[in-house]
Amino acid sequence: MTAVLPRAVDLNADLGEGFGAYRIGDDAALLDVITSANVACGLHAGDPEIMVETFRLAKAGSVAVGAHPGFPDLWGFGRRALPYSAGEIERLIAYQIGAAAALSALAGHPIVYVKLHGALANLAVADPDIAAASVRAIKGVDASLACLAIAHGKQHQLARDAGLGTYSEVYADRGYQDDGSLMPRARPGAFVHDPAEAVERACRMVETGEIVSVTGKVLPTAIDSICVHGDNPTAVVTARLLGERLAAEGVVLAAFAGKA
Amino acid sequence: MTAVLPRAVDLNADLGEGFGAYRIGDDAALLDVITSANVACGLHAGDPEIMVETFRLAKAGSVAVGAHPGFPDLWGFGRRALPYSAGEIERLIAYQIGAAAALSALAGHPIVYVKLHGALANLAVADPDIAAASVRAIKGVDASLACLAIAHGKQHQLARDAGLGTYSEVYADRGYQDDGSLMPRARPGAFVHDPAEAVERACRMVETGEIVSVTGKVLPTAIDSICVHGDNPTAVVTARLLGERLAAEGVVLAAFAGKA
Amino acid sequence: MTAVLPRAVDLNADLGEGFGAYRIGDDAALLDVITSANVACGLHAGDPEIMVETFRLAKAGSVAVGAHPGFPDLWGFGRRALPYSAGEIERLIAYQIGAAAALSALAGHPIVYVKLHGALANLAVADPDIAAASVRAIKGVDASLACLAIAHGKQHQLARDAGLGTYSEVYADRGYQDDGSLMPRARPGAFVHDPAEAVERACRMVETGEIVSVTGKVLPTAIDSICVHGDNPTAVVTARLLGERLAAEGVVLAAFAGKA
Amino acid sequence: MTAVLPRAVDLNADLGEGFGAYRIGDDAALLDVITSANVACGLHAGDPEIMVETFRLAKAGSVAVGAHPGFPDLWGFGRRALPYSAGEIERLIAYQIGAAAALSALAGHPIVYVKLHGALANLAVADPDIAAASVRAIKGVDASLACLAIAHGKQHQLARDAGLGTYSEVYADRGYQDDGSLMPRARPGAFVHDPAEAVERACRMVETGEIVSVTGKVLPTAIDSICVHGDNPTAVVTARLLGERLAAEGVVLAAFAGKA
Repeated sequence: MTAVLPRAVDLNADLGEGFGAYRIGDDAALLDVITSANVACGLHAGDPEIMVETFRLAKAGSVAVGAHPGFPDLWGFGRRALPYSAGEIERLIAYQIGAAAALSALAGHPIVYVKLHGALANLAVADPDIAAASVRAIKGVDASLACLAIAHGKQHQLARDAGLGTYSEVYADRGYQDDGSLMPRARPGAFVHDPAEAVERACRMVETGEIVSVTGKVLPTAIDSICVHGDNPTAVVTARLLGERLAAEGVVLAAFAGKA
Repeated sequence: MTAVLPRAVDLNADLGEGFGAYRIGDDAALLDVITSANVACGLHAGDPEIMVETFRLAKAGSVAVGAHPGFPDLWGFGRRALPYSAGEIERLIAYQIGAAAALSALAGHPIVYVKLHGALANLAVADPDIAAASVRAIKGVDASLACLAIAHGKQHQLARDAGLGTYSEVYADRGYQDDGSLMPRARPGAFVHDPAEAVERACRMVETGEIVSVTGKVLPTAIDSICVHGDNPTAVVTARLLGERLAAEGVVLAAFAGKA
Repeated sequence: MTAVLPRAVDLNADLGEGFGAYRIGDDAALLDVITSANVACGLHAGDPEIMVETFRLAKAGSVAVGAHPGFPDLWGFGRRALPYSAGEIERLIAYQIGAAAALSALAGHPIVYVKLHGALANLAVADPDIAAASVRAIKGVDASLACLAIAHGKQHQLARDAGLGTYSEVYADRGYQDDGSLMPRARPGAFVHDPAEAVERACRMVETGEIVSVTGKVLPTAIDSICVHGDNPTAVVTARLLGERLAAEGVVLAAFAGKA
Repeated sequence: MTAVLPRAVDLNADLGEGFGAYRIGDDAALLDVITSANVACGLHAGDPEIMVETFRLAKAGSVAVGAHPGFPDLWGFGRRALPYSAGEIERLIAYQIGAAAALSALAGHPIVYVKLHGALANLAVADPDIAAASVRAIKGVDASLACLAIAHGKQHQLARDAGLGTYSEVYADRGYQDDGSLMPRARPGAFVHDPAEAVERACRMVETGEIVSVTGKVLPTAIDSICVHGDNPTAVVTARLLGERLAAEGVVLAAFAGKA
């Protein structure tokens, strides 16, 4: 069995999601466990101060960093699907990648990938125009940046077609629909609340190279990274358990971006 | 006399100062005259849409483009001196340079310089800590970007000391204090409202290589660029007259960034 | 024929739509013609300074004032239909009514009505939940405030059912669909660009008490007010012509709120 | 000694300081102890959702509510002293009072007082123009609203002179300067971190009717309310201890606004 195990997998989480005096999640604790940090870019969360601070902490912890663009909606934390055109979304993503690139350079720890946030990520899974816009934004700003996305979506497919370094992630604590997309947050089965179960699911995905949807459908999937939500109260516990469990099975945690 | 004339001078103006449905200034008309456009970066004015549109129009008109960072104060249009620390200002400037770099890359017309806006520019003239912060931001994000600033200020001096390409500008339509800084907007002598007079002043500065303050003090100054304010109602008229008058005197208008 | 003419009709326009250094429309010129001013409340346009200034100018011109709440979307000028719940919209409207009530009190010229802006107004025409939310907001904050809306919509109906003073308006420069709602801005027939034609249409509506849709359908309508868009370049011309033409026909221009 | 004890004192805290997905402080726990809640109005913290939620929770807990206006600076949490004119501050305060009045009316629990937040409160203690502006805002919007402020400041004095219901508060967990103003947050002695000590200090103030500055200067002070900072990690513990200790000494906790 161990022969088919990947030698390494990445653990990613959303970091730097505070704003001014506000904080969400225990970034310091997560940085001890994860290997890639998706850093909010100031429009749905984050500000220049916490961005630089997060890049510096990630550098100190040898954690790879990526831009994590979202809708310009601090009030909605980027979770509302806003009616922007594909062209507007292309510019919004490019703006945020640029800001993150600059602040990560200032921190001496440049971003190496882009992962979309919240409602924007969901749209780029399902809507080919928005997926294409996101790929144009990444490629137009810096074609050496990788794209991290769930495997069964338009963005992953178009990013690979466009020649971008493209990596696929699975969610430890989220349920899947039959087409490989995440179950919407408001629907039953959206979340796996028990850390032990989330860990078990994620390990099974990595071992088998398969996702199992909430209806039981099996979807073969290349898995480069596992996402643990930073704003989940049990995120740190789940991430730690997952790291230990994967290590125990001989899977090394390493940033996917280092594999390219 | 013509032997001491510079062969070329740049004309710069602030562009892309709209936001959403709002517009300020006649950008299209200015782009016919100027050789460098300072493009607002979304925090005191500008948004991703008008930024890309401005970069594209500037490319079409062969006008060089620079990032034009300001305080995060859309309401105050970047004219209020906000109490941010030098470190916060460093991050604010870096954030905006990065966003402008990304959108200008997307437009196929990358920024080649940075010029600070409004109250932030004034602070960087007078306050060595803020000047140093602005220089760290430019150098930390992209050391190949030039710095455009008035000659008699801290930012100009520290940018040159830091090895950045550094260019000096004069204002056609603003009065000067004896230390070479601009007369504050609320004070008598701050503005030259008559376009003919503004043109005459600017030509005299270019010819003589000197600024004359409101008290008559003469300040020898290297002049790479002349700034015409885009939000002045007479900006376009002044810019056109200035271009014609300089051409008549054998001075070629050319982007300073092309001289480097 | 003159026996069936109304003795008076109101002319309303959106005012105070600037923000900080930005301005939209010629408010001073419009105030010379209109009898009711819909004042933006700071979320899609407007700020405390221009709000108070507009209330003062309206008072000086004996123009009635109303709160003009919109989506919290300065970038989109309140024209994007944002995915807020009916409950969130109720709170958003109440917030803006309160702010406008306070600043109009400070200016010595209290608001007497509420008219929704842009995408929010369109939703309240068509969506009964959002219409009900808007009526709860007005009634919950101040039941003496009137509601101004187009006649053939949910908000008008529910406001009247709830016992609010309810007035109906027609648009001089917009086309109508067969259900009495405005033709969406992106569709053919949305706008009447010729001022003379807009004036002719509005007079015909007032005379006949009927709206004619773009397909020719006739909709009998009580008409308390005629709206002229303040951000239309021809708004002032249209408003002046309309006032003169109505006066010539013996129709007095007077704020609807004075009829209650 | 007990003969001079007040029969009742109020406990106030800042509530509703979240924004969107962000939360600060344990509002539910504080509402079990305090008798007046200062509710953020959306410009330095708060949004229409948390405002209404806070007014409803306060109503359920029989806690009086007041508007808590601050500078329009979500990033700085209202703690930066921004360079607005007195007139601009008057409009900013009026705007926020109006929004809070409307949402508290919607929640069925109208605000009865105004207390300024952060840097704005500090300015209104020291600067007579800003103090006067704040008094004009309260009086201009609703002269029945009381003003809550520290006793030894310009706002308290001018509010009383203007005929507003005026109440004075002391801080359980802050040090005082010799003029009765709070020690700035960045200076030694600004905070009392030990809950037991904060409780002891506050009780002593209520018993003696005196404030003692960090240098030992004694300032006789009428005390209507004690403020416990909601964003202090020990706020809830301090507030509970204080309530118990005061009750043990026969002091009844009751909203000051009920005394008018």
